[in-house]
Amino acid sequence: MNYLALRRQALLRGLKTGGQPADAILVTCAENVTYLTGFTGEASYLVLGPKTAVLVTDPRFEDQAKEDCPELGKPDGLDLHVRPHDITTPEAAAGILAKAGKAVGVEGTRLTLGELEVFRALAPKVEFVPLSGPVEALRAVKDPGEVERIKDSIRVAERAFKMFVATIAEGDTEKEMVDSLECYTRRCGARCSSFPPIVAVGERGALPHAPPTARPLSEGSKLLIDWGADLVYKSDMTRVVRNPYGTALTRRNKFERTGHQLEKVYRAVLAAQDAAIAALRHGVAAKDVDAAARKTLTAAGYGEFFTHGLGHGIGLEIHEAPRIRANSADTLEAGMVVTLEPGVYIPGWGGVRIEDDFLVTRDGCQRLTTLPRELDALG
Amino acid sequence: MNYLALRRQALLRGLKTGGQPADAILVTCAENVTYLTGFTGEASYLVLGPKTAVLVTDPRFEDQAKEDCPELGKPDGLDLHVRPHDITTPEAAAGILAKAGKAVGVEGTRLTLGELEVFRALAPKVEFVPLSGPVEALRAVKDPGEVERIKDSIRVAERAFKMFVATIAEGDTEKEMVDSLECYTRRCGARCSSFPPIVAVGERGALPHAPPTARPLSEGSKLLIDWGADLVYKSDMTRVVRNPYGTALTRRNKFERTGHQLEKVYRAVLAAQDAAIAALRHGVAAKDVDAAARKTLTAAGYGEFFTHGLGHGIGLEIHEAPRIRANSADTLEAGMVVTLEPGVYIPGWGGVRIEDDFLVTRDGCQRLTTLPRELDALG
Repeated sequence: MNYLALRRQALLRGLKTGGQPADAILVTCAENVTYLTGFTGEASYLVLGPKTAVLVTDPRFEDQAKEDCPELGKPDGLDLHVRPHDITTPEAAAGILAKAGKAVGVEGTRLTLGELEVFRALAPKVEFVPLSGPVEALRAVKDPGEVERIKDSIRVAERAFKMFVATIAEGDTEKEMVDSLECYTRRCGARCSSFPPIVAVGERGALPHAPPTARPLSEGSKLLIDWGADLVYKSDMTRVVRNPYGTALTRRNKFERTGHQLEKVYRAVLAAQDAAIAALRHGVAAKDVDAAARKTLTAAGYGEFFTHGLGHGIGLEIHEAPRIRANSADTLEAGMVVTLEPGVYIPGWGGVRIEDDFLVTRDGCQRLTTLPRELDALG
Repeated sequence: MNYLALRRQALLRGLKTGGQPADAILVTCAENVTYLTGFTGEASYLVLGPKTAVLVTDPRFEDQAKEDCPELGKPDGLDLHVRPHDITTPEAAAGILAKAGKAVGVEGTRLTLGELEVFRALAPKVEFVPLSGPVEALRAVKDPGEVERIKDSIRVAERAFKMFVATIAEGDTEKEMVDSLECYTRRCGARCSSFPPIVAVGERGALPHAPPTARPLSEGSKLLIDWGADLVYKSDMTRVVRNPYGTALTRRNKFERTGHQLEKVYRAVLAAQDAAIAALRHGVAAKDVDAAARKTLTAAGYGEFFTHGLGHGIGLEIHEAPRIRANSADTLEAGMVVTLEPGVYIPGWGGVRIEDDFLVTRDGCQRLTTLPRELDALG
């Protein structure tokens, strides 16, 4: 049996054991449909039951479905239903749903109140059972093929970053640099960036989600870059560089101008990431990994400037389970792939964030990103 | 009173007149928050009541909120609540909600079942009333300032398109062309494309949502391009070009090779768009505009190849009210801005779609896009 069918089987097995059992499920979230069928288009649903596995799409995506889904039409594989232009996808799905099961699970963390109303009206005999992220729970632990695809995404992002750092020049604005990074990320093989890249000059690095402005790069500016590649699977990294361009002369000038405090803050953030790496392993509570980084920054006097959670899972989405935050209830498991991204943001001065991607293992973790983490080791 | 406050007032007035009245509303959809506050970041909510207007965000977006929202802190303006890192945005919003009203409307077409559960647990004394797109209903009719912003987005998209057509060359792949169009769109001033651009070579134009491949542009290829710009407000256009590059010699060759059928299909699609333009005006049922285009294509023998709806509203989102389709219940109103995009898709041969953006007026409509619509008038 192929890996997609195995995933669908695992999902169906899980439906029986919930508090309110369902015998079939309607999958509406695009990334969950991708995970269970291979289809990478949008606006399409999977109706899955003991004897049913139908991808419901519209004519725009018919050919793409045939390209994306190797199982189509094979025994125990996936069936394709292409709706006509004059009915909606929920209408097309409702007819199939009614045959798939009596109690049909829906994705409670994805389906809107309005969508559920529509389905209830279209399939009045079906009992809809809201479920809390059953596909997301499977997706949190990656199989080796998925880890390879995340690594591919990291390689593309890292190569694009090297191109980007090699080509920026004094006077480039944040907006121009964001666009340049986007273009290199695509040129290296990504569909696009995995999220809108952040390139923040100087004290604008104090905004953890700085939207790009006309602020230019000038000699001695520190630069915070948060970026990633979308190759269906996603990567997510952050680096801070100083003197990203220039000669020995500008390098000397820059050290004089931004040196001391940047080095001090950077050392503290790197130590916080190191503490998180030491804590990260199978069986540990995610909030304890956050606490390890936060404790290190607090000891260094920067605790109050670490204003966000430590990290998150990555995969088909840029933010997925587990959440690594002070208020997370998640427990880390071998096979999860997560970011660790401590940061210190000092208004008026700027910010330092160091973000890498890690595979959780039985004994600890493995860093999947390969760019050096030290200041001045890049560019 | 400023236009943002007027929009919030109009929304509150509407809450009283619904079948199940609410005295306050929780706005969670990012574009709706933008419409009502000016804030363009993510993951932030507006709590709005008779005496309450609070934007609830997290520390990542604090500075952006101050830049985006001119009303902050002014009398009768907007208040800002920045939650700490160790509570969630719903937790922060729940405290404010409980004071804003007893019956609080929520966005039924946006809020997930799981999110409503969370809010019910956090604010057990509040009665939550699911509403069906009250902000979207206001957004469907644009004010003159919004029409200008859509026009700005169109100007950027059109300028980028001209750059793109001027610079493509034989051998460029669909993927390279998509990336090039994205880069020019940004360079002309957009945040990014308003959706992933489509560039389909030759018979791949038969896939209305063709994902880009390694298929290269070759002499005589026809090329379908569907693109738009995101300047917060969005534009959406499609053109088909042949011989986008080359000399008089290749132009002659190309005419011989792709001439006859392309010209015939193109004429039919243009006539369908003309029929839709003639039908488009205040007070008309959206489905009748779809029918006008469909009837023209059917008469030309291409009805079965027009496999999608005719158009949709554009604005803060790339697809918004009204829907112009065979199964639409919407009625057109002066001030709506919509696409009209008839298409003919012939498997194995290719496709033609012509898409422009129109302002609905009392007497008819005004084309906001300015690129010529005729074949061979471009590039």
